Amino acid sequence: MALSYNALAQSLQGRSICFIPKAYCIRDTKLRSRSNVVFASIDKNIALQAEVDSLLDRIKWDDKGLAVAIAQNVDTGAILMQGFINREALSTTISSRKATFFSRSRSTLWTKGETSNNFINILDVYIDCDRDSIIYLGTPDGPTCHTGAETCYYTSVFDQLNDDEAAGNKLALTTLYSLESVISKRKEESTVPQEGKPSWTRRLLTDDTLLCSKIREEADELCRTLEDNEEASRTPSEMADLLYHSMVLLSKRDAKFEDVLEVLRKRFSQSGIQEKQNRTK
Amino acid sequence: MALSYNALAQSLQGRSICFIPKAYCIRDTKLRSRSNVVFASIDKNIALQAEVDSLLDRIKWDDKGLAVAIAQNVDTGAILMQGFINREALSTTISSRKATFFSRSRSTLWTKGETSNNFINILDVYIDCDRDSIIYLGTPDGPTCHTGAETCYYTSVFDQLNDDEAAGNKLALTTLYSLESVISKRKEESTVPQEGKPSWTRRLLTDDTLLCSKIREEADELCRTLEDNEEASRTPSEMADLLYHSMVLLSKRDAKFEDVLEVLRKRFSQSGIQEKQNRTK
Repeated sequence: MALSYNALAQSLQGRSICFIPKAYCIRDTKLRSRSNVVFASIDKNIALQAEVDSLLDRIKWDDKGLAVAIAQNVDTGAILMQGFINREALSTTISSRKATFFSRSRSTLWTKGETSNNFINILDVYIDCDRDSIIYLGTPDGPTCHTGAETCYYTSVFDQLNDDEAAGNKLALTTLYSLESVISKRKEESTVPQEGKPSWTRRLLTDDTLLCSKIREEADELCRTLEDNEEASRTPSEMADLLYHSMVLLSKRDAKFEDVLEVLRKRFSQSGIQEKQNRTK
Repeated sequence: MALSYNALAQSLQGRSICFIPKAYCIRDTKLRSRSNVVFASIDKNIALQAEVDSLLDRIKWDDKGLAVAIAQNVDTGAILMQGFINREALSTTISSRKATFFSRSRSTLWTKGETSNNFINILDVYIDCDRDSIIYLGTPDGPTCHTGAETCYYTSVFDQLNDDEAAGNKLALTTLYSLESVISKRKEESTVPQEGKPSWTRRLLTDDTLLCSKIREEADELCRTLEDNEEASRTPSEMADLLYHSMVLLSKRDAKFEDVLEVLRKRFSQSGIQEKQNRTK
């Protein structure tokens, strides 16, 4: 297989922690001569190639040499797309860190984003218990679907059966993003005059003082579940209140929950937890 | 196909909103005679069966009559498992609301949970843009994997290449659940005496006064990004701080972020947003 394991080695080195297989980590290279480093590097790449080959051997490829690959957004958990992979597609994904598939109709390898530039940047790859299904966990550069939709899954079967107008235009959203979507709709509506009593979300969206007083109040109530050792179920309930009100503030500020997760992920990779160790208080 | 569309009709009726295709919603049945209701019910089931059949016709089944189905946790977004489906498997899933697959090795239909009782309860089904890949969005009754793991994806390729001890024992976690997992580890360690300066998370876990003062402080800082119209990027950053500290409190109280999402989902299905409309403040 004509793959650059130099590229793979560099790719793995790019991780926030040393990611080259431990046996091949070259430490204190400054203490070694240049020629030693070159030889070590060649040895390392051969060993790494062997490791990747061994891993590819363990996948249960079907009678056509294929397995299923599911690309998932590492922050939101959204399933972006699903394709098939062969040995070369998986190997390429591991080395290039761009989600790569095998097209069954064209019988060729293809990297998501090669024409649209909307690559899916791979942070890790997971194999299932049966070793015939793979998750590509990554961050998309833009919408994944060729239609311009964020993911390829925007057609709800139950909406279709219900002849709902939204059928074919509603992303498969998990709980948090369904809530975000509802808040976002209320925000759009909040500029249109409305008869009758406004919804609670609309009231929050149009009254900063009310919104901020609720966020401070809900944070306080969450703390009191610990301080007053309240019944266990009170904590998730108060946290849900705090989260909902905070998400209204996020929407108000044109921010997305995904932005919050990106901050958390970057703090992780910069060893955010350790960074917090250095705080005095 | 020997499927009970009475069961499907009942299943669809169970939704929080009227979910029977609009054309077949029987309103004011009390005003109709019993025989009329029976005939209407038969007509409705025939029409619903036709709708489901038409939907199944639109799926692009492969040369073996199969498509890919991915089961996803509606709250956490975790990919629970992936299997294959044929026409009957999808039809059964829609009517029974239990994730059902087609076993390629045994050539039989099987419902996840039929032996373990760990069913995956379906809330919606999504079809991708190519109409050959399906998401089963649902809530699992227990661990999905036959090994007892929460999901079938617990083997990291990059950990394996790194000869990491955790390889084969680390669930594919998205950002929020990686953070939750790190906090959980710090909590386990916090009972063991430690030399040197404790981590920030450990300090929070062992000092309720510090933890609560930080949560109130971070909530206040989040509010001030709105009140003082701070730079846009400050809002996700402060929200990340609030979320992290709140998640330490959740851990301290033995609650999971998933519990919070369950609360939010249930409020949704009870029309939580509308419920909030009725609040006086």
